[in-house]
Amino acid sequence: MRMVDIIAKKRDGNTLSREEIHFFIEGYVKGEIPDYQASALAMAILFRGMTNEEIAILTDEMQHSGEVMDLSTIKGVKVDKHSTGGVGDKTSLVLCPMVAACGAKVAKMSGRGLGHTGGTLDKLESIPGLSVQESDEEFIRQVNKVGLAIIGQTQDLVPADKKLYALRDVTATVDSIPLIASSVMSKKLASGSDTILLDVTFGEGAFMKDIDSARDLARIMVDIGNSLGRNTQAVLSDMNEPLGCAVGNALEVEEAISALHGNGPKDLMELCYTCGSIMLTQAGLAKTEQDARGQLERAVKSGQAFKCFINMVEQEGGDISYLLNPSEFKKADHIVDVISSKEGFISRINALEIGEASMRLGAGRETLDDVIDPSAGIILHKKVGDYIHFGDVLCEIHTCKDESEYKPVIEQIRHAYEYVDVPVNVHPVVWEVVK
Amino acid sequence: MRMVDIIAKKRDGNTLSREEIHFFIEGYVKGEIPDYQASALAMAILFRGMTNEEIAILTDEMQHSGEVMDLSTIKGVKVDKHSTGGVGDKTSLVLCPMVAACGAKVAKMSGRGLGHTGGTLDKLESIPGLSVQESDEEFIRQVNKVGLAIIGQTQDLVPADKKLYALRDVTATVDSIPLIASSVMSKKLASGSDTILLDVTFGEGAFMKDIDSARDLARIMVDIGNSLGRNTQAVLSDMNEPLGCAVGNALEVEEAISALHGNGPKDLMELCYTCGSIMLTQAGLAKTEQDARGQLERAVKSGQAFKCFINMVEQEGGDISYLLNPSEFKKADHIVDVISSKEGFISRINALEIGEASMRLGAGRETLDDVIDPSAGIILHKKVGDYIHFGDVLCEIHTCKDESEYKPVIEQIRHAYEYVDVPVNVHPVVWEVVK
Repeated sequence: MRMVDIIAKKRDGNTLSREEIHFFIEGYVKGEIPDYQASALAMAILFRGMTNEEIAILTDEMQHSGEVMDLSTIKGVKVDKHSTGGVGDKTSLVLCPMVAACGAKVAKMSGRGLGHTGGTLDKLESIPGLSVQESDEEFIRQVNKVGLAIIGQTQDLVPADKKLYALRDVTATVDSIPLIASSVMSKKLASGSDTILLDVTFGEGAFMKDIDSARDLARIMVDIGNSLGRNTQAVLSDMNEPLGCAVGNALEVEEAISALHGNGPKDLMELCYTCGSIMLTQAGLAKTEQDARGQLERAVKSGQAFKCFINMVEQEGGDISYLLNPSEFKKADHIVDVISSKEGFISRINALEIGEASMRLGAGRETLDDVIDPSAGIILHKKVGDYIHFGDVLCEIHTCKDESEYKPVIEQIRHAYEYVDVPVNVHPVVWEVVK
Repeated sequence: MRMVDIIAKKRDGNTLSREEIHFFIEGYVKGEIPDYQASALAMAILFRGMTNEEIAILTDEMQHSGEVMDLSTIKGVKVDKHSTGGVGDKTSLVLCPMVAACGAKVAKMSGRGLGHTGGTLDKLESIPGLSVQESDEEFIRQVNKVGLAIIGQTQDLVPADKKLYALRDVTATVDSIPLIASSVMSKKLASGSDTILLDVTFGEGAFMKDIDSARDLARIMVDIGNSLGRNTQAVLSDMNEPLGCAVGNALEVEEAISALHGNGPKDLMELCYTCGSIMLTQAGLAKTEQDARGQLERAVKSGQAFKCFINMVEQEGGDISYLLNPSEFKKADHIVDVISSKEGFISRINALEIGEASMRLGAGRETLDDVIDPSAGIILHKKVGDYIHFGDVLCEIHTCKDESEYKPVIEQIRHAYEYVDVPVNVHPVVWEVVK
């Protein structure tokens, strides 16, 4: 078998066999197949697509390219969730403690942010002392003890994805449903949980620009998960405007704490309750989603959800005094209001622009080597549907950069807003559920 | 400027600017842009194509990626020709001496064979003693002295193509008109001749499988050449059956010698006379193609064309006794007749199959490191249109491989023939001329 023939086969629109996909993944991980052949294949897949069966095989081969977690020593049903990424997306920080408080075991490996999207690990690390590196044994012990762990992927998990994702990032082959689906699902499957809930975002700030592509991606991932024996469902959620009001690492942790107290922004609360209800029914911990929602609301009201978050942070070495008193988080050098120069109902807050602006303020990475400023970011004072007068504060920026650096960012932020004269119909954040 | 953005731009079907193409070619030759980005771009170009202007710019940037030959010290009009490759294509060995004998200066840099197609350099090197490596000065001196030189490309000529061609070969990105056109034309332009004749082959044994793609490729290359100030024309020639009767290196040299004596197979003679007539009129050495043809026929009849070939081989260190007495060429260990098991008019001799069979007999390279056996190959006894009886000799194979190795090749050769019951209309080898 020759890699060049496999590339040519896909280039010509044919279906790759399991043997061919195995040959590619194994050879690539071993370093026998060079990056230049892998990138040519990735581009051919981007243009030609893959059948659902090919994607399932690719996912399976990637899953088994390294260590597969064995969570069987964790008592109870292990649940996992994954978001395809967005701006202001602190869902995991709220949702995971909520479902853990209701008895689900959350054993979650998460990722870092790149470009305009944030990463859960970076957000957690804005809590002083917290480390997301744990051994498999520590990870399992923590979940058994406090019901919840969110840590970084262990080094040996899905090495094929680590190599391929880094390659795709620099060869313009990220935007391919088969490659996104196999990347996400191989990691979720290798992480070993019993159920998987996918939050497939769509809109300006997401990989998927429209709901139809999001539905296609969700359908494929849900089918792969179920065909490989995991109860998998997906929600399609709107990422046309940022989720919640806070964008930036410590700022999002503060917002997550408010949400765990029941005081988060409406869209964030709604997304967490919807996802949580599905996760509890997936785990068999609730008979109906209505029943599940009741449990979740009680877990928030009673403080149990927040307590789960505290326990997790404590286990991971974080200083919980910041959670108990969020005003202790170190503030950025400059906190500057962005004032509206227009009037009307906000019809759009371009999440991509806000995400990039936040990155430029210091909250994100342009390249993997960049260092994040945990205090940097943006707090939205108004959301889509709100009425704005001249001179209202649209949002505030938090940054340690000089004025000469943040001034152009303010302009970018202003451009992210669009206005109309008539009231705007705001759609709930979750548009559909894919089972 | 970032390479990943250039790849994404082409992936999305947009037109690259001169600055972007320059950035890619310069960075790639310098080693600043890695192979994995170049192969992703090549695959995107294969799918999305390029505008004629983009191809002209790519050609120009590749041409200037290294040394550009200055042939101004050669007196007279410098003519060059290039074939897009085929099976049994020894045209250069016959055509170049013919036009040189009529006063054109032939300063030709040629290539090696790979896969089922042969290369002029490999054929020349089957003449004992001959070396195709010359310095620029030796090359120019030789053309001034004997009117004709065919040598290997100097190391510094179009380094972008050397790197890119090797990469395309292993990433299934060879079959792209923009990439083929820029590869061919950048080398021809950098070689410095005044006129260029392109022999664009089509059919089973060629890159272009049908005459329409061949015409597209020819049109683009002719336009690029003329737009950059070189008189460029192309013939579209049929490579559905092998050209002439000999396939294999020394065997083709012997057939070329026959042709230079006026005794070559009809299709080969016709292709050489047609191409030669165009080249002489391009060079202003003949007013009409009829006049040119008369000159060429006289050059063959008088022995001047053969003498030019002898002079060239002598200058390049070859032992001319083999040319004067071709039976001296070392014969292969096994010469075996392939007998027909069918009856009828031959309607097709699949050139791709014959080319691959010849390679398997030892005449070609599967990879660049393979060593060629100059004595190996195939001699066709019958061509398309001939009537075959059971038991007739279709062809003979020449090989130094064992019977266990060449037996399956005989089967492959038999499969290359197709028969019909009624006489076959044989089309002249040259179908069209593109000016």
